[in-house]
Amino acid sequence: MSSIEMIEAAARRLAGHARRTPLLSSPFLDEIAGRRLLVKPECLQHTGSFKFRGAWSAISALDPEIRARGVIAFSSGNHAQGVAHAATLHGISSVIVMPSDAPKLKIENTRALGAEVVLYDRGRESREEIGATLAGERGLTLIKPYDEPQVIAGQGTVGLEIAQQATEMGVKRAEVLVCCGGGGLTSGVALALHHHAPDMRVRPAEPEGFDDTRRSLASGTISRNTSETGNICDAILTPQPGQITFPILQRLCGPGLAVSEDEALHAMALAFLRLKIVLEPGGAVALASALFRGSELQGDTVIAVASGGNVDAALFQRALERFA
Amino acid sequence: MSSIEMIEAAARRLAGHARRTPLLSSPFLDEIAGRRLLVKPECLQHTGSFKFRGAWSAISALDPEIRARGVIAFSSGNHAQGVAHAATLHGISSVIVMPSDAPKLKIENTRALGAEVVLYDRGRESREEIGATLAGERGLTLIKPYDEPQVIAGQGTVGLEIAQQATEMGVKRAEVLVCCGGGGLTSGVALALHHHAPDMRVRPAEPEGFDDTRRSLASGTISRNTSETGNICDAILTPQPGQITFPILQRLCGPGLAVSEDEALHAMALAFLRLKIVLEPGGAVALASALFRGSELQGDTVIAVASGGNVDAALFQRALERFA
Repeated sequence: MSSIEMIEAAARRLAGHARRTPLLSSPFLDEIAGRRLLVKPECLQHTGSFKFRGAWSAISALDPEIRARGVIAFSSGNHAQGVAHAATLHGISSVIVMPSDAPKLKIENTRALGAEVVLYDRGRESREEIGATLAGERGLTLIKPYDEPQVIAGQGTVGLEIAQQATEMGVKRAEVLVCCGGGGLTSGVALALHHHAPDMRVRPAEPEGFDDTRRSLASGTISRNTSETGNICDAILTPQPGQITFPILQRLCGPGLAVSEDEALHAMALAFLRLKIVLEPGGAVALASALFRGSELQGDTVIAVASGGNVDAALFQRALERFA
Repeated sequence: MSSIEMIEAAARRLAGHARRTPLLSSPFLDEIAGRRLLVKPECLQHTGSFKFRGAWSAISALDPEIRARGVIAFSSGNHAQGVAHAATLHGISSVIVMPSDAPKLKIENTRALGAEVVLYDRGRESREEIGATLAGERGLTLIKPYDEPQVIAGQGTVGLEIAQQATEMGVKRAEVLVCCGGGGLTSGVALALHHHAPDMRVRPAEPEGFDDTRRSLASGTISRNTSETGNICDAILTPQPGQITFPILQRLCGPGLAVSEDEALHAMALAFLRLKIVLEPGGAVALASALFRGSELQGDTVIAVASGGNVDAALFQRALERFA
């Protein structure tokens, strides 16, 4: 199971490999948020999202002989890029199983990061079967996107950094908003802060209509989303909270928050103007919650994890046209 | 005069106030540059540019009684915002003298950062006279944008960080490209690296047609630009190298580099795609030189200082439309 010891061990394995992202702020954003707002820009992480941390953690934790056979992942997004890059840096091969209708740029980027991309037909084939066959033939290890203790431990290093950086700034008490899909990042950060900054409380942030975690936390049982598509926050549209992540969230997190697509776009525009960082919609929901859900927050300081920045130019321009 | 001792003293005064920006990289940019490329994103500094460092350094170095009377600066750009914010954080007043035709947003931002903005008519009034009158009446201290040893010392802290961060990554030898206007940042970085990373060499980067520093270095005497307007790299369009900065550049820097407006826009688009940071054209000329002037560079590693990100949405969108 995931534990603070695993997160601290992951931090040692990540040292010198993952980037230590800074904590950013702007008086203009403090004004909008109505309190002090600190932003942890994981868009600046290798491959443009926090996913590199979990991928590196999981791959570096493998037995060297098993690792040498290579890894496999199912993903068309940030997890794919994180696994591909972490595998290449470890000098091992990676196979990424993607739907054949995934955006060409994502396929090309994943290949350019060193992965073998295997495409499947979403309508007719099962990625699990394809993956199981490939894994069996080649002895590949599956790297799951969130429901995997070593992945959670890697994402938790974001929380270790927040605890240390906020303390250096004199911040002890804060609500920490985390963009939440399957809950790997949120549960890892919650575990890390529970031990190193116990006066901080994590709040998951999601898109409205895809707030499975918020509903699950409110009801006390895992609740599903009705769809996995139909929202610009594609990076965090997962069917439901994970089996491993949810009990951690339930034990450690405060109530969830949810924002509209327009609020995510607005937060992207403000991050452009005031922080000079590039966020994707799914990576902006925590910042949007900090800016536009102030009445649901407590205390004089809020920290938002900006989890990723892999957005195409057209969508980013839409955010700027509407809100910058 | 500027010295490594002044830079190190400035670093101590800036600790906990200026942001320590990370060193970013992307395998995609390495590929284009044809060598390892590291980027120091000073767009992530407070107020969106390195100018905050020099402003803080100069203000914090003042005698407390003199400082308490306030400071004054002439600028419509990044120096204005740096001085305004650093003054406000010191609890003192600042007056920024700006042309009345400066963009409204820049005037508003500077006011919002706590400055009193005094507008003058570029055609009929002299900002120096207005400034001298105000300074005399109120006892304000003028903070010059680059030809001032404590400002150079503050900008030089960028070089201290590069030396330390590159060493941690195993990089000892590199060409370090710096966006160059009056030469405050370039000379400060050159001084810092000369002492702490003597195998690194600084190269000033400028816009084509406004390459006064490149021409001055080539000829050995200070050469002027024919114009101070007419290029999108407005942040670094200065009339000529400074009297204090130029001798430092002459002693320590390699030949200058210059890029076109389109190359600056292209570098902005690549920084968006691959580093997830926002650059303004004048803050992108060093990165553009690293990417598109490889034949003029030596060695297997290049470091580019991305000096600022204060760009309006329309111009940023133009960069994305053309090159992303």
